[in-house]
Amino acid sequence: MGKILLLNGPNLNRLGKREPEVYGHETLKDVEEQVRQLVETKHFHLDAKQSNHEGELIDWIHAAEGEYAGIIFNPGAYTHTSIAIRDAISSVTVPVIEVHISNVHKRESFRHISMLAPVCAGQIVGLGTTGYQLAATYLLEEKEQKG
Amino acid sequence: MGKILLLNGPNLNRLGKREPEVYGHETLKDVEEQVRQLVETKHFHLDAKQSNHEGELIDWIHAAEGEYAGIIFNPGAYTHTSIAIRDAISSVTVPVIEVHISNVHKRESFRHISMLAPVCAGQIVGLGTTGYQLAATYLLEEKEQKG
Amino acid sequence: MGKILLLNGPNLNRLGKREPEVYGHETLKDVEEQVRQLVETKHFHLDAKQSNHEGELIDWIHAAEGEYAGIIFNPGAYTHTSIAIRDAISSVTVPVIEVHISNVHKRESFRHISMLAPVCAGQIVGLGTTGYQLAATYLLEEKEQKG
Amino acid sequence: MGKILLLNGPNLNRLGKREPEVYGHETLKDVEEQVRQLVETKHFHLDAKQSNHEGELIDWIHAAEGEYAGIIFNPGAYTHTSIAIRDAISSVTVPVIEVHISNVHKRESFRHISMLAPVCAGQIVGLGTTGYQLAATYLLEEKEQKG
Amino acid sequence: MGKILLLNGPNLNRLGKREPEVYGHETLKDVEEQVRQLVETKHFHLDAKQSNHEGELIDWIHAAEGEYAGIIFNPGAYTHTSIAIRDAISSVTVPVIEVHISNVHKRESFRHISMLAPVCAGQIVGLGTTGYQLAATYLLEEKEQKG
Amino acid sequence: MGKILLLNGPNLNRLGKREPEVYGHETLKDVEEQVRQLVETKHFHLDAKQSNHEGELIDWIHAAEGEYAGIIFNPGAYTHTSIAIRDAISSVTVPVIEVHISNVHKRESFRHISMLAPVCAGQIVGLGTTGYQLAATYLLEEKEQKG
Amino acid sequence: MGKILLLNGPNLNRLGKREPEVYGHETLKDVEEQVRQLVETKHFHLDAKQSNHEGELIDWIHAAEGEYAGIIFNPGAYTHTSIAIRDAISSVTVPVIEVHISNVHKRESFRHISMLAPVCAGQIVGLGTTGYQLAATYLLEEKEQKG
Amino acid sequence: MGKILLLNGPNLNRLGKREPEVYGHETLKDVEEQVRQLVETKHFHLDAKQSNHEGELIDWIHAAEGEYAGIIFNPGAYTHTSIAIRDAISSVTVPVIEVHISNVHKRESFRHISMLAPVCAGQIVGLGTTGYQLAATYLLEEKEQKG
Amino acid sequence: MGKILLLNGPNLNRLGKREPEVYGHETLKDVEEQVRQLVETKHFHLDAKQSNHEGELIDWIHAAEGEYAGIIFNPGAYTHTSIAIRDAISSVTVPVIEVHISNVHKRESFRHISMLAPVCAGQIVGLGTTGYQLAATYLLEEKEQKG
Amino acid sequence: MGKILLLNGPNLNRLGKREPEVYGHETLKDVEEQVRQLVETKHFHLDAKQSNHEGELIDWIHAAEGEYAGIIFNPGAYTHTSIAIRDAISSVTVPVIEVHISNVHKRESFRHISMLAPVCAGQIVGLGTTGYQLAATYLLEEKEQKG
Amino acid sequence: MGKILLLNGPNLNRLGKREPEVYGHETLKDVEEQVRQLVETKHFHLDAKQSNHEGELIDWIHAAEGEYAGIIFNPGAYTHTSIAIRDAISSVTVPVIEVHISNVHKRESFRHISMLAPVCAGQIVGLGTTGYQLAATYLLEEKEQKG
Amino acid sequence: MGKILLLNGPNLNRLGKREPEVYGHETLKDVEEQVRQLVETKHFHLDAKQSNHEGELIDWIHAAEGEYAGIIFNPGAYTHTSIAIRDAISSVTVPVIEVHISNVHKRESFRHISMLAPVCAGQIVGLGTTGYQLAATYLLEEKEQKG
Repeated sequence: MGKILLLNGPNLNRLGKREPEVYGHETLKDVEEQVRQLVETKHFHLDAKQSNHEGELIDWIHAAEGEYAGIIFNPGAYTHTSIAIRDAISSVTVPVIEVHISNVHKRESFRHISMLAPVCAGQIVGLGTTGYQLAATYLLEEKEQKG
Repeated sequence: MGKILLLNGPNLNRLGKREPEVYGHETLKDVEEQVRQLVETKHFHLDAKQSNHEGELIDWIHAAEGEYAGIIFNPGAYTHTSIAIRDAISSVTVPVIEVHISNVHKRESFRHISMLAPVCAGQIVGLGTTGYQLAATYLLEEKEQKG
Repeated sequence: MGKILLLNGPNLNRLGKREPEVYGHETLKDVEEQVRQLVETKHFHLDAKQSNHEGELIDWIHAAEGEYAGIIFNPGAYTHTSIAIRDAISSVTVPVIEVHISNVHKRESFRHISMLAPVCAGQIVGLGTTGYQLAATYLLEEKEQKG
Repeated sequence: MGKILLLNGPNLNRLGKREPEVYGHETLKDVEEQVRQLVETKHFHLDAKQSNHEGELIDWIHAAEGEYAGIIFNPGAYTHTSIAIRDAISSVTVPVIEVHISNVHKRESFRHISMLAPVCAGQIVGLGTTGYQLAATYLLEEKEQKG
Repeated sequence: MGKILLLNGPNLNRLGKREPEVYGHETLKDVEEQVRQLVETKHFHLDAKQSNHEGELIDWIHAAEGEYAGIIFNPGAYTHTSIAIRDAISSVTVPVIEVHISNVHKRESFRHISMLAPVCAGQIVGLGTTGYQLAATYLLEEKEQKG
Repeated sequence: MGKILLLNGPNLNRLGKREPEVYGHETLKDVEEQVRQLVETKHFHLDAKQSNHEGELIDWIHAAEGEYAGIIFNPGAYTHTSIAIRDAISSVTVPVIEVHISNVHKRESFRHISMLAPVCAGQIVGLGTTGYQLAATYLLEEKEQKG
Repeated sequence: MGKILLLNGPNLNRLGKREPEVYGHETLKDVEEQVRQLVETKHFHLDAKQSNHEGELIDWIHAAEGEYAGIIFNPGAYTHTSIAIRDAISSVTVPVIEVHISNVHKRESFRHISMLAPVCAGQIVGLGTTGYQLAATYLLEEKEQKG
Repeated sequence: MGKILLLNGPNLNRLGKREPEVYGHETLKDVEEQVRQLVETKHFHLDAKQSNHEGELIDWIHAAEGEYAGIIFNPGAYTHTSIAIRDAISSVTVPVIEVHISNVHKRESFRHISMLAPVCAGQIVGLGTTGYQLAATYLLEEKEQKG
Repeated sequence: MGKILLLNGPNLNRLGKREPEVYGHETLKDVEEQVRQLVETKHFHLDAKQSNHEGELIDWIHAAEGEYAGIIFNPGAYTHTSIAIRDAISSVTVPVIEVHISNVHKRESFRHISMLAPVCAGQIVGLGTTGYQLAATYLLEEKEQKG
Repeated sequence: MGKILLLNGPNLNRLGKREPEVYGHETLKDVEEQVRQLVETKHFHLDAKQSNHEGELIDWIHAAEGEYAGIIFNPGAYTHTSIAIRDAISSVTVPVIEVHISNVHKRESFRHISMLAPVCAGQIVGLGTTGYQLAATYLLEEKEQKG
Repeated sequence: MGKILLLNGPNLNRLGKREPEVYGHETLKDVEEQVRQLVETKHFHLDAKQSNHEGELIDWIHAAEGEYAGIIFNPGAYTHTSIAIRDAISSVTVPVIEVHISNVHKRESFRHISMLAPVCAGQIVGLGTTGYQLAATYLLEEKEQKG
Repeated sequence: MGKILLLNGPNLNRLGKREPEVYGHETLKDVEEQVRQLVETKHFHLDAKQSNHEGELIDWIHAAEGEYAGIIFNPGAYTHTSIAIRDAISSVTVPVIEVHISNVHKRESFRHISMLAPVCAGQIVGLGTTGYQLAATYLLEEKEQKG
């Protein structure tokens, strides 16, 4: 059975507790459960992890090689600063979809730049927690087509 | 019956004929048909238009007010330069989803900036023509939830 | 009888319908009528046009040569991006007054730059729709003095 | 009887004596007299002051609070550098209209930026000394409408 | 019989009427006739078009595919701003030679950058209307060599 | 009994051992003890922590929510680079005072920018280790006033 | 008996009257009185001055040499623009503490830069009018320790 | 008998008292006396003034028109920031020589730019207080040749 | 008999030996011979020189004054850096045509700027070694027209 | 017996597995063994560590003080972003040699800047894994000379 | 007998022949003779050299060490670009005075920056060829004072 | 017998005579001799050259093609400015190692950029004159491995 990795970066453990006018009221647990249900309808398994540590996220991306069919990744603030995570993504062949819950382009200008987007398969921005599900849909369809 | 507008900007009429290593082999007609099928399963109607004229795109966005439940919009090169289209989107209440077929963040740096993203509901980038369908999925689900 | 041209650029057809907290409740028709009344008290005729098409605005500026005593021009978003309109204004001898209804200097930084101001006679900013009338007053007084 | 303050900043005491190809031949006295006549037709009183001292201009703006219906202000070179005058304008509720005799956008690039425009009601640029009169017209009309 | 397309962008219809100290006294008709004569000596046909509309220029470039042996293109002000025209040129295989009558490098700094040059075959700048003929000479010679 | 958290970021464990001409001879232990004494005179408890790990600092800020009346935070080099810590501070309601021992404005230009200051209550810079005590004084007084 | 100088720059005479949501309701007199009381408990004398004139602030800083044990200085808007005040501070040996009532880092980007901080002893930002008292506390403690 | 004006800007009253490693041990009085002696050998009169007030320097430059054969001007820190003094110099026909005692190009980068140099006759930098005498020599020689 | 100077700058002696995918297989000798033949058909003489030394190129441009009817100049890398060569061209009245074999706008961004173009008559870019011949054609035609 | 520390930063654990066209086929183990052999010929001991965690690298640099004769350090992506590691290197007296396997100057522009180089003894770039051995050679020779 | 070196850089051999409206009608020979006469009145010898070659200027600066009491240097266009000449000046102990005939600050912005000024004793700008004599005066007076 | 070329650029002839605190006391002769000894132990021949002339360095690089197994090159100040030398290196197939004696990253910011590094095999910075020997070691080992 294929596996998908749902990876959340810094401060996303505070989802639902933090700035609800920006991020909404769902908790990270809720979101992970929604994606899990969607993924399991296609007979895939979902592993969900969160860390505030840049190094730990890198370790997990390395470990995903050969294990997962794809990574749904909300890198939080590391999106804008981490060349190290960019290199980690480049160092594996697993496709990564970058997801942002809020529309980062409506916020401070330092959030308009993604260091990671150029090495990801694609990017979904501003569609709320639905964005995670669209990313899962994409990965599962790609998988289906390629066999 | 609700309606969705699929809007494509400059040079997307050349889809399938132009730089296939960047944009793939499907024609714009093919893509429009795929989205139409998806939309009709939810009993929505799809109108699809394309123009190379900035002014015409603005006219169509104005005319969409009160007519469509949402716009799926690939603004092509105008993404990076058109404040006039930005103002057009701001002047209506219809939600707009910005879609790019290729991963613009892998290309020239002037393609990394979107003048439109800050006034759109969200953005889907680099997921090929599947991006249009994900945008449609999002608009239909939003509609369903809000009634 | 002398003639004045009142030219409005992209999205100004939405005046009164769009973002009233920024642009107020008067429609473009209302504004044109106010300027017409003022102009006719001085026995001048007013032609009023609006377009969302950069090329059409250029065509009209070319055609104004030798026809109008002056142009009152709100170029909307093209103010900040259009070198082509700048060159059109340079290519005619009719004096052009640039008018902005809102105080563009209170808004996004890309609205602080005018590509057109250096080739216009002058600029009136942030004085609401009264700005159009002040521009008309200026053109009529200039005309009167020069004969 | 209502009062209007006409405030001129650095070097405007040299008007008519300095660079006539840029600023024309009228003296500051002439200009003040023209505005006074216009203002008195509406039964308003005009006070006119000029200073080369940034601090004195700030003192006068503070003192205008509760005394004047509006300020017509040509801040000269302080337009481009003075955050202190900007804060002074912010600290009072009197509306301020920024006026420039020459078209600053045709001159050196450091004259294209106004530190003051974002806190003024509006800006009139490049319409010669007529600009002061248009500003007065605007303030008197606003006053009339609001009662 | 082979065909060459001579394409002129915004404001070039004003050639000979506009700023003669920059652009000379010949009209666009004169220039087109000169290039036609040169082209016909090599038994090629010349079509000459001009538009102030960015979208129309894009439409014509698309339509040139498979029809013309080359395009001589003076994009006027769109040279410096139009990514949409750049993409149009990239989307066809017809070689395009960018021509500027005046030496743009002697003028405002925003005219020093060409968005189009990187996707054109080459660029001829500042050699007056002779530049169009040199471009034609180049295209005809290339054609001759390749057969 | 209320609690205050004293948080020190990367390299502050080297205080007293590292570049004494910049940071003085007191060790981090000494500094923590001084702040503890001050805080206890007001019947508050002080917890003091230090980490070189960005992720650990984020974890501790999250954990402070609902536990501490305020955080005295010297973020060391992360001040200038960490959007992730900025988001952590935004995600809690505990007031944070940013403290720097040395006058960062006298040092390299990359130390003049604080990514954190806009989301902190305030900032104390260059007053040596006394700065920690002033921050504590502020937090205790605020607490007293609000009850 | 030692003396401390409390110096306030442009627009701080409007404290309590101006933008209370930014600066609070206390007047400058209130603030001066609070600092005076604190200073007198240590048997120091406080002189308090305010000016909107850059030159006068420079004169006063020069005159402070040999007269005061320290200067508590809120330079207002001159913080961001005045190299002349910077040089005045460099030209004396009296320690200067820069104080800002509001958190300048939350405001316009031109307020994030201090021309003065590199030549001041330190900086206290965003802690309201309490910041003045913390600065006084620092100066008195330094004085005590050194003699 | 002709007259020369020696004008010194902010902080130059502190000459000899301030940062002697940068500016040397001579006082402003000493320097003025040396220039006076040199000037009087050519039967010219020297007036020497100093102010820390930008506005006062502007007033004096205006008053110099028609009174002095030339101005030797060390504008201190206003060199780098004052467009108002620049305009004052432009508004008079008296030639102005800008003098700096220290080599400003060896110091902070904000001292490398002179707002005034483009409107001065010339500039002498880094030659100590001898620079004032070289400026006087130049003005006297020019005078001699022309008159 | 009139004379034309063909001048080639640094590394062009390596033509045909260096990076043939960028510069083609013709040697500099071949190119010079082609231009000579073209020039001699119009009864002009061609002198061809190449140097890697900036100073030598300057010497030759000086010496061209009064000797040559025009210079065809490929300045190689000095195009982008040499103000000294720019001044040399300004110091003579011989018209200079700047030629680049490759399309510099397709290469590194530091090759997009020409320090020389603003003082040359014009520029031919990216048309291979044919560009030299087009430049010769232009110079000969100009000569013919002027006599 | 003296000791050398070989420190590798983020993603270098993927050496030989990741982008072999950039980094070659040797694994990190291979490289460490080669350096160990070289070091032991000089009777030194080598400790080799790798981490993807910025904080752990800082901890190890601190711990190296007084333990190692030198550090050979490939900081990977943290080279370009980590002021915290820079401060860690500054806080110890052990000499650090920065090594990069690939020629970072041939890659993305954000890899051209090293935040660490200014506080390292030196830098070896682009010489493959031989660079580590050259760094070891340097440290051992320095050691030998100084005793 | 002491010696002074008068060094002129690129294009100054064209003095009097080139752009007389910028540089005047005197030739370089005239200027050298004037400085020689002035220098000889103080019993010094003048050597005068000119080169268009950056390398030759460097050679001469090296050779000046121990030979000359000072160098009067007009580096022409190399002023703005040559770090190599900057290093040459740093590598000798002979004082160098940088002289520019025209006021470079009135010209193109790339002429406002001097790479050399920070390592020269001082700079004289815009005082015509008199500037050379003032530089000589300065060097001779310095020499006299120091003995 | 294979040959290595040791090339030194501007001002390196002053080594040991110039700024010894930056560059040490060894002369260029000493350094060349040390590298020669190292090279000869591997039965290679060393040619050592130095020039202050950019053009001469280019000539020598061209001449090295087919003659040398590698170039050890300290380009001095031309490192930061010479695109012409960059193109020379690109035009040959001989591997070039860029060497800097001092740590350029500790010096002025214009020394942090190398125009040459992207076309060199690698770079050794800040390891004193030992850097030349490490470069030689590298070239000899590469040679040995490749045969």
